Amino acid sequence: MSRKRDEAAHEAKRDEILDAAEALFVTHGFHQTGMAALCASVGMSPGALYRYFPSKTEIIRAIVERERAAVVLSFEPLVEATDFAAALEKHVAQAIAAAAEERFASLALEVAAEARRDPVVAEVVQRAEDEIVERLAGILSAAKRRGAVGSTVDPEVAARLLLAVVDGSVAARPTLAQLPSRRLKPTLRGLIRGLLGLPTATVERSERSG
Amino acid sequence: MSRKRDEAAHEAKRDEILDAAEALFVTHGFHQTGMAALCASVGMSPGALYRYFPSKTEIIRAIVERERAAVVLSFEPLVEATDFAAALEKHVAQAIAAAAEERFASLALEVAAEARRDPVVAEVVQRAEDEIVERLAGILSAAKRRGAVGSTVDPEVAARLLLAVVDGSVAARPTLAQLPSRRLKPTLRGLIRGLLGLPTATVERSERSG
Repeated sequence: MSRKRDEAAHEAKRDEILDAAEALFVTHGFHQTGMAALCASVGMSPGALYRYFPSKTEIIRAIVERERAAVVLSFEPLVEATDFAAALEKHVAQAIAAAAEERFASLALEVAAEARRDPVVAEVVQRAEDEIVERLAGILSAAKRRGAVGSTVDPEVAARLLLAVVDGSVAARPTLAQLPSRRLKPTLRGLIRGLLGLPTATVERSERSG
Repeated sequence: MSRKRDEAAHEAKRDEILDAAEALFVTHGFHQTGMAALCASVGMSPGALYRYFPSKTEIIRAIVERERAAVVLSFEPLVEATDFAAALEKHVAQAIAAAAEERFASLALEVAAEARRDPVVAEVVQRAEDEIVERLAGILSAAKRRGAVGSTVDPEVAARLLLAVVDGSVAARPTLAQLPSRRLKPTLRGLIRGLLGLPTATVERSERSG
């Protein structure tokens, strides 16, 4: 077998283990899931599994990093968008829908809870988070340079607020994702455009602001 | 002792038990905290504690309802605000800071995790959530009637998005609260004004939106 095929097989097996681990964590909780149950689920001996992941902490690290890579990849359509605000609005609406998905929400909660107990996991989560913010802030900066984002907008702050909206729709608030999109969209559009420092919909009357 | 004094004493004891329970849940987790540990912490016999809370589920219900009452109370300054957008901006900035507080964030995670396991807790959380949304949406509707919120804004959607921003700054993202307020405020202002359908800061150049 070529080295390349070896690597591809290793990668595929690794993904399979992570999928099984995610399913077990979601159903039983991170703490209630033992390595033995994971071995049984993927049909591997403890020794074979150990060659992929020597500990549960390494598994949770890999889960967080896989998720981080997926989130960063999901930003790509924003890079080349001709209408940046519209692309961002679409992205956030999709992210809200995805974040409220049962499996994702449970896993996010398990990881967040574990991050409070284990400083290694906390650091892994924080680093993934920072990389996501950095990438999104970079995209916002580029859009700002070409005038698609208002000149007063702080790209890092805007990135963190956008991620907060998406995260906030994870935990106790799946209802945001359950709203019909014809109701969600107009208000979400205002939020996005206001956040980007772009002119928002005209209002008939507006109060004087201090 | 008068009935009124009886009730006040009962209320005070109840709050003391809830404070102790919150501290234990935050430190050890909801599942790892037994009723025996709670009895020891408040110096009560199981029988005496039982008269206040017959189960851990009843304790978590009382914690959620106490939190709900505090959140609803925190909306009060918005009701009489002369500059609604500015008052809301201040409220959200304060809520972001409070939500990222360690004790609050841990407790919110414990409650959210338990809501996924126990349908009774899920219902309690959902009802508290709905009441919070309803109150905030009511305040937004009133502001809309007097022209302080744009006529195209959906009060319920706006309320849920605002709560998502605050919630999203709880879990893995305390960094939003760590940003200096001079950086947070201008971008948060844009988000709030855009969400409220109010004119946002002028931009030098704005792209044409589809």
